[in-house]
Amino acid sequence: MSDHAGRVLGAVLYPNFELLDLYGPLEMFGCVGPDLRIVTVAGEPGPVASWPGPTTVAEFGFDDCPHLDLILVPGGVGTRSQLDTPIISFLRDRAPAAEVTMSVCTGSALLAKAGLLDGRRATSNKMVFDFARSQGEKVDWVEEARWVEDGPFVTSSGVSAGTDMALSVIARLFGRERADAIATLTEYEWQSDPGRDPFHRFLNQMMS
Amino acid sequence: MSDHAGRVLGAVLYPNFELLDLYGPLEMFGCVGPDLRIVTVAGEPGPVASWPGPTTVAEFGFDDCPHLDLILVPGGVGTRSQLDTPIISFLRDRAPAAEVTMSVCTGSALLAKAGLLDGRRATSNKMVFDFARSQGEKVDWVEEARWVEDGPFVTSSGVSAGTDMALSVIARLFGRERADAIATLTEYEWQSDPGRDPFHRFLNQMMS
Repeated sequence: MSDHAGRVLGAVLYPNFELLDLYGPLEMFGCVGPDLRIVTVAGEPGPVASWPGPTTVAEFGFDDCPHLDLILVPGGVGTRSQLDTPIISFLRDRAPAAEVTMSVCTGSALLAKAGLLDGRRATSNKMVFDFARSQGEKVDWVEEARWVEDGPFVTSSGVSAGTDMALSVIARLFGRERADAIATLTEYEWQSDPGRDPFHRFLNQMMS
Repeated sequence: MSDHAGRVLGAVLYPNFELLDLYGPLEMFGCVGPDLRIVTVAGEPGPVASWPGPTTVAEFGFDDCPHLDLILVPGGVGTRSQLDTPIISFLRDRAPAAEVTMSVCTGSALLAKAGLLDGRRATSNKMVFDFARSQGEKVDWVEEARWVEDGPFVTSSGVSAGTDMALSVIARLFGRERADAIATLTEYEWQSDPGRDPFHRFLNQMMS
């Protein structure tokens, strides 16, 4: 696929990532077709187990990963173990060159730890919100939002919110018609209003 | 995990499966916790590439797969290539011993081809509905449904419908409270009415 002419999306894996944080967005981005190539990347290439077990293969390690136009950082129970690993410097190196950097759920804690969200608006999983907050004191954390877009950074709330966010990024890059068509194709009722957040009332109920 | 005391769910993989068909349900089932072990199975153990590329590792082959209490069959563009492969006899062998056998999207075409849905009500992806229909003349195909439950078989419509179906199966096996708690935890707005089908109007619009 070295002759690929479109954008490249890198899905960043680490042990005990949350399945739907990764695969809700990848379903939607996968439907974009040849304009977008999806690659998986982790510290080292090879299998990476999700939190409930099913294992995804990372095609690339951080050292041999191609240029990424889009970066997707899932969250999950494994996030906490990644705060002092090479993923932080990988994100710090790669995000400035990317067109869009996205996080789902606690993935924004990793972007915050890398300093990438300083001075920007961002959100995270509602139920463990203060965990993300603790990783970035200079971030303008938005408690009530399905997702938040600030320049090249788009951060979503927990798990399923990432799928809605992904469609919004598809609309931004490829047009609203394409996003609507993908939602229909996948029989998905897209919640396209980033400010509508029925889960805000559970703020920090599962601490941390 | 050989001392696992709960149920075992087997996710059946094949090349070019649809990502969210698999991982929407696995997200929800994964949140059940220790009462449910998830295993992945394919013709042979090893990596199985999804349609847009990301690759999942099958832990077991059909020959060494443990007893399955629950079976999940995703659909996708790869389904059509599986109609005359060992997956059909695997499903025919294993489904009668399972408590629940589920399909998402065109996965019901494989269950139909195996003869498992004969005399039963079932559904499939709206946009390529006649493909599933052509695999089971003795099936009572339901055109308008998010998912259909008939005894131990639960078949869902396209892609995202599988996530709603999975929560309904969790409610059946583990109680409605557990299903509601998992939907909240994953910030998922569960569409819990199996008969509500906003995508019915696209019936067979992407033929086949």
